Amino acid sequence: MKKLNVGLIGYGFMGRAHSNGFAKVNHFFDLEHQVVLKAACARDGGKVKAFAARWGYESVETDWHKLIQRDDIDLVDIATPNNTHAEIAIAAAKAGKMILCEKPLSMNGLEGKKMVEAIEKAKVPNMVWYNYRRIPAVALARQLIDEGRLGRIFHYRAKFLQDWTISPDLPQGGAGLWRLDIKAAGSGVTGDLLAHCIDTAIWLNGSIDKVSAMTETFIKERKHNLSGKVEKVGIDDACAFLARFSNGSLATFESTRYARGHKALYTFEINGEHASIFWDLHDLHRLQYFDHRDEGKLRGWRSIHVSDGDHPYMKNWWVPGLQIGYEHSFVHQVADFLQGVESGKPARPTFRDALETQYICDAVLKSAQTRQWEKVPKVTRTA
Amino acid sequence: MKKLNVGLIGYGFMGRAHSNGFAKVNHFFDLEHQVVLKAACARDGGKVKAFAARWGYESVETDWHKLIQRDDIDLVDIATPNNTHAEIAIAAAKAGKMILCEKPLSMNGLEGKKMVEAIEKAKVPNMVWYNYRRIPAVALARQLIDEGRLGRIFHYRAKFLQDWTISPDLPQGGAGLWRLDIKAAGSGVTGDLLAHCIDTAIWLNGSIDKVSAMTETFIKERKHNLSGKVEKVGIDDACAFLARFSNGSLATFESTRYARGHKALYTFEINGEHASIFWDLHDLHRLQYFDHRDEGKLRGWRSIHVSDGDHPYMKNWWVPGLQIGYEHSFVHQVADFLQGVESGKPARPTFRDALETQYICDAVLKSAQTRQWEKVPKVTRTA
Amino acid sequence: MKKLNVGLIGYGFMGRAHSNGFAKVNHFFDLEHQVVLKAACARDGGKVKAFAARWGYESVETDWHKLIQRDDIDLVDIATPNNTHAEIAIAAAKAGKMILCEKPLSMNGLEGKKMVEAIEKAKVPNMVWYNYRRIPAVALARQLIDEGRLGRIFHYRAKFLQDWTISPDLPQGGAGLWRLDIKAAGSGVTGDLLAHCIDTAIWLNGSIDKVSAMTETFIKERKHNLSGKVEKVGIDDACAFLARFSNGSLATFESTRYARGHKALYTFEINGEHASIFWDLHDLHRLQYFDHRDEGKLRGWRSIHVSDGDHPYMKNWWVPGLQIGYEHSFVHQVADFLQGVESGKPARPTFRDALETQYICDAVLKSAQTRQWEKVPKVTRTA
Amino acid sequence: MKKLNVGLIGYGFMGRAHSNGFAKVNHFFDLEHQVVLKAACARDGGKVKAFAARWGYESVETDWHKLIQRDDIDLVDIATPNNTHAEIAIAAAKAGKMILCEKPLSMNGLEGKKMVEAIEKAKVPNMVWYNYRRIPAVALARQLIDEGRLGRIFHYRAKFLQDWTISPDLPQGGAGLWRLDIKAAGSGVTGDLLAHCIDTAIWLNGSIDKVSAMTETFIKERKHNLSGKVEKVGIDDACAFLARFSNGSLATFESTRYARGHKALYTFEINGEHASIFWDLHDLHRLQYFDHRDEGKLRGWRSIHVSDGDHPYMKNWWVPGLQIGYEHSFVHQVADFLQGVESGKPARPTFRDALETQYICDAVLKSAQTRQWEKVPKVTRTA
Repeated sequence: MKKLNVGLIGYGFMGRAHSNGFAKVNHFFDLEHQVVLKAACARDGGKVKAFAARWGYESVETDWHKLIQRDDIDLVDIATPNNTHAEIAIAAAKAGKMILCEKPLSMNGLEGKKMVEAIEKAKVPNMVWYNYRRIPAVALARQLIDEGRLGRIFHYRAKFLQDWTISPDLPQGGAGLWRLDIKAAGSGVTGDLLAHCIDTAIWLNGSIDKVSAMTETFIKERKHNLSGKVEKVGIDDACAFLARFSNGSLATFESTRYARGHKALYTFEINGEHASIFWDLHDLHRLQYFDHRDEGKLRGWRSIHVSDGDHPYMKNWWVPGLQIGYEHSFVHQVADFLQGVESGKPARPTFRDALETQYICDAVLKSAQTRQWEKVPKVTRTA
Repeated sequence: MKKLNVGLIGYGFMGRAHSNGFAKVNHFFDLEHQVVLKAACARDGGKVKAFAARWGYESVETDWHKLIQRDDIDLVDIATPNNTHAEIAIAAAKAGKMILCEKPLSMNGLEGKKMVEAIEKAKVPNMVWYNYRRIPAVALARQLIDEGRLGRIFHYRAKFLQDWTISPDLPQGGAGLWRLDIKAAGSGVTGDLLAHCIDTAIWLNGSIDKVSAMTETFIKERKHNLSGKVEKVGIDDACAFLARFSNGSLATFESTRYARGHKALYTFEINGEHASIFWDLHDLHRLQYFDHRDEGKLRGWRSIHVSDGDHPYMKNWWVPGLQIGYEHSFVHQVADFLQGVESGKPARPTFRDALETQYICDAVLKSAQTRQWEKVPKVTRTA
Repeated sequence: MKKLNVGLIGYGFMGRAHSNGFAKVNHFFDLEHQVVLKAACARDGGKVKAFAARWGYESVETDWHKLIQRDDIDLVDIATPNNTHAEIAIAAAKAGKMILCEKPLSMNGLEGKKMVEAIEKAKVPNMVWYNYRRIPAVALARQLIDEGRLGRIFHYRAKFLQDWTISPDLPQGGAGLWRLDIKAAGSGVTGDLLAHCIDTAIWLNGSIDKVSAMTETFIKERKHNLSGKVEKVGIDDACAFLARFSNGSLATFESTRYARGHKALYTFEINGEHASIFWDLHDLHRLQYFDHRDEGKLRGWRSIHVSDGDHPYMKNWWVPGLQIGYEHSFVHQVADFLQGVESGKPARPTFRDALETQYICDAVLKSAQTRQWEKVPKVTRTA
Repeated sequence: MKKLNVGLIGYGFMGRAHSNGFAKVNHFFDLEHQVVLKAACARDGGKVKAFAARWGYESVETDWHKLIQRDDIDLVDIATPNNTHAEIAIAAAKAGKMILCEKPLSMNGLEGKKMVEAIEKAKVPNMVWYNYRRIPAVALARQLIDEGRLGRIFHYRAKFLQDWTISPDLPQGGAGLWRLDIKAAGSGVTGDLLAHCIDTAIWLNGSIDKVSAMTETFIKERKHNLSGKVEKVGIDDACAFLARFSNGSLATFESTRYARGHKALYTFEINGEHASIFWDLHDLHRLQYFDHRDEGKLRGWRSIHVSDGDHPYMKNWWVPGLQIGYEHSFVHQVADFLQGVESGKPARPTFRDALETQYICDAVLKSAQTRQWEKVPKVTRTA
């Protein structure tokens, strides 16, 4: 087996999720590459050493510039806040590394475009961690659509609801809270949560032409952890938008961190001429499916427990009826990425594919400002 | 249209449920008979007058002997406590009346046998109010079994869980509480709740050969409302039993009034070679159905919203998607009874059919005493 | 008891639902009035006679002008297509009758305003059949909000999904299909379905300030049943809109008749600072409730089976655990209307209250045309 | 950190599940020991080498006698068929190794007793892999019971339903199918599935006094994979039993491999005086909880998404709302075992604790033969 040496930058929530993906993938998937946890990188030397010890990274760096120049690093994995993605990715591309980048790709479409140009110039394998495409139930949804089971699509609706920022005492910014800091995150729920919904949507249902959006910041000021002062909140606490897909279907999207009772309720539903699909991250191992072609008196929503050997990814895990969880989507993404490298058919979404989501996010945020419908610039997807 | 004059005995919970069935049936079902609420009968003259006024009964009686002798009564409906069923039914049969009798048929099998003999000698139309057969989802279950969709049956399981007698302060006996009084009720949950489960089970899955049961009375003494004294509790608070059906399938049955969180949770599940069925009284308008012959990756339990025009009884009600409720099962039972009278094909369960349930209840209670498996005497069902 | 003589106009789906409400209300509710089904009116003499016979109406009319002039009619109930509401209601008001009018109030806000003026000039009791306010679970939701349990409201989302017009072979117009005919219905899903969602929303969450909407007509032409020709379809097949409530909360609304798997899936969810509520017409007897003030490790969505005696309306029905259904909301509405007449505190929504919904529908349809956010004119609600 | 060298015997389904537990535990739990995958052992040299390579075991053995004699092995993990547990465990105990043994402990109680004696004589840390105790939702159930929230327990009911042996063409015995071979498995669903239900039950609700059981073998003969001949099937395909707990509560247990639609549906419900609990392996990340002490009109079953930081084990994983799966129960079990070793308070169930389950299984199988209630011999649990 070929070794594939990984250099990880960032050790937060995503750093752990990615590391777990790297550590487990060879236990469960047959690949030509053996993933090696070669180096972990973060500014705080003590913390990164502890992180590396826990996960078995062979070495540490405290300067990412050094990491990407190391000859023994094949793949750079970017798991840092959004405002650092572009600089690191462009430098890593120039250094000829394979690159995995946490989502969203960038702070905005303009920045994302530069990243795409850099990476395509360098011709390095690349992927963005829109991990929900790799939940088996979501992958099954894609199969069903590809097989034409839904027929003409009429409706798409998605939401991503959380409730963790309702307290006005929660500060913005700093470790673990950079997602509330407009300078580090670029936006609020739009880039953090709706980006996931949009990535799945365009993967399942094609491009979006235009949007009409509204955003709201319910808590106007919060203490900033870095400055120590009460500052204006720059992010969107909530965002909802109407959309029209290129295939003629209508959509509603909504995200908020102010929906009591929902921790990470990402749901989507697609209504087609013949069949409908519903999925819910809180019960991620199930797909709800309704097929109008079933015999009339026996029609009903089927609750498919996506844990059988003929379901996507599941033959690699346990036995029918036994669930996998959130973290497995990252294992699958590593497996797919490597199979993409091995087969020459790149796994998706590439940086280019993720740029489309970035443009939609831009249009959504712009529409919320202009209070007009906004068109989405076209992106050619990876062939 | 022919008039069919009803004389109701008893104005409790079941008196209301039956009256509502009589009052509504001609609004929703096409029948040859027009049901007329001719007389209501109960010992308390004031109360029965108020009841009659509310429901539109044309007259009242305070002595049921008088009611059953009235020439203008075609049908006697027995909605009184269990210990009065036999005497009234036998007398009404002798008087040549059609008879509807609330379940359970009788205090025990011996008594029930006499009722069957009397009614068959009199050759009068008769039926017992095992109303759950007429819930559309339950009727659909029967259709599916009749169509052979389940194949060989392996398992049957049913339970009926309530939680209303957990307080030791609840008295036994008296108005509204006669179900706790062994002298009026004959048994506790066995006759009250398991009788329903058994009636459905033998209707769907055929006869039961033998049973092994246990019963328990959690609260040993309660104040008796009639005597005013603390007395030993004679009824079974809970009962569970194993059973073997004649078709080779295995069954578990359980009922209790000590299951917190369940008001009237009657559920049953049937597992066949090809398909399985589940139903739940708390969501009575749905049938859960799993068919192994569905395409592998799309197999799942279908939640069938039994509200379409091609579902049993539903074309008579509203439009698809709009639920009916508990009370409608009684309307259906009146409709089916009248159609049975009109067509000459009696609706079920007749007294004879209900006797089979009585024998099973007897065997269950006996097994709980003997701590042995007990055989169930055979009953020939109505042809 | 005082007699209250009802004259019903129209014998379609709603004519049946209203009649059932009138027929049952005195069986289950203690009122000063005895409802009398005095007359049914429709143009087809044969059919209205059959309808009257089935339901027990004492007489029939084939001209509604005659009906509203009859001295023995106290209350006129309008259950005809939308384009006839205004003329009948205004005439009935002039004739001094109490008026119940099926929803939506009118073809548009202008027409509705005239109806409000007429009825207020005549000072007659009046109400619009937005029946979903009277589903016990929905009434419980209102109680919880009135008690302040949710705290500040952040989000409201509602949808009403159906799937019955997907076939291009379905004609528009004519008996049973007038809801597809723009001339009879005034709009498509907006007036038919979203009007229900809006009525509940403004009752639960206050006024809506502005909206941004999109509509779509998926099947552009259909055969018209009256003309016999293929004609352009004028109604909206689907409509979705963003809204901002006066209380600062954000909302999404959506309705369609092209959502496979949903017969009448009206759902709403409200997210407040402390608690959230969810309701679903397909399981109308349940309310989902999440309260953040519950102990941390035990927080969860509670599935409340709204069938206990302390739930709204339920003490009038059966025993805990036994569901009621769709039709009961109409019984409740008659009961509430009569109690309003008896107490001098009118039941809601009055024509005036329903006008607010009409204005919102107008703004929604206008926004779909202008592709702009549209403001909603203010209406003072009934004191 | 101290090294803890593991020697695994067996590489089937459970060999993988255990290995994953060993491989992941130090990534997510803070322990004094570093688990080292030192050696994997199985008879087939080629296969065990491939297995070792995949999982990172440093060496292989093909004779378990050699493995348990190796000085560099601290812990022997037994993941072989049931009929080999006793011999290996007793030998490993004599060799002074820590022992983890896959469930059920033994072929029967007599054999189990010998294992307990051997291991207690050797005074080695030991545990049986009843992994479901470590599902966070199940651990939460135990917390709630320990806190006295349920009050007096009235009812316990558990079932474990599968559907994978319905086809008569499925052979018995041989690799992957030894669970169908009476000689290798000792029993059918009783030892395989009910043992899990029983272990959880006695952990949550105390000892069982007596049982009344029935078993069935639906397919009487199957081809045996080892002999190549059609042979009588010796295992129980299905088993159901009634039980009485020492605390006075009543129970029903059922297991089968003939329940269409259920892959691994292990469910249990406990009804107490004040509260009830329900759990379901098919949605293992949820606990259903009903508390009668909640305010009357707001009582309902709470669906607790057991994914918060204050839920058992969950602070070690991701963020609220993100599920873990089946495999994590094994990681937890390794963590708990090691913490037991480190703290001197042994993790449960020990061999001694698991012997109680073995005695209950024996009584169940005996009762199915004698058709009598059978008493369960008492076992003193580990202090």
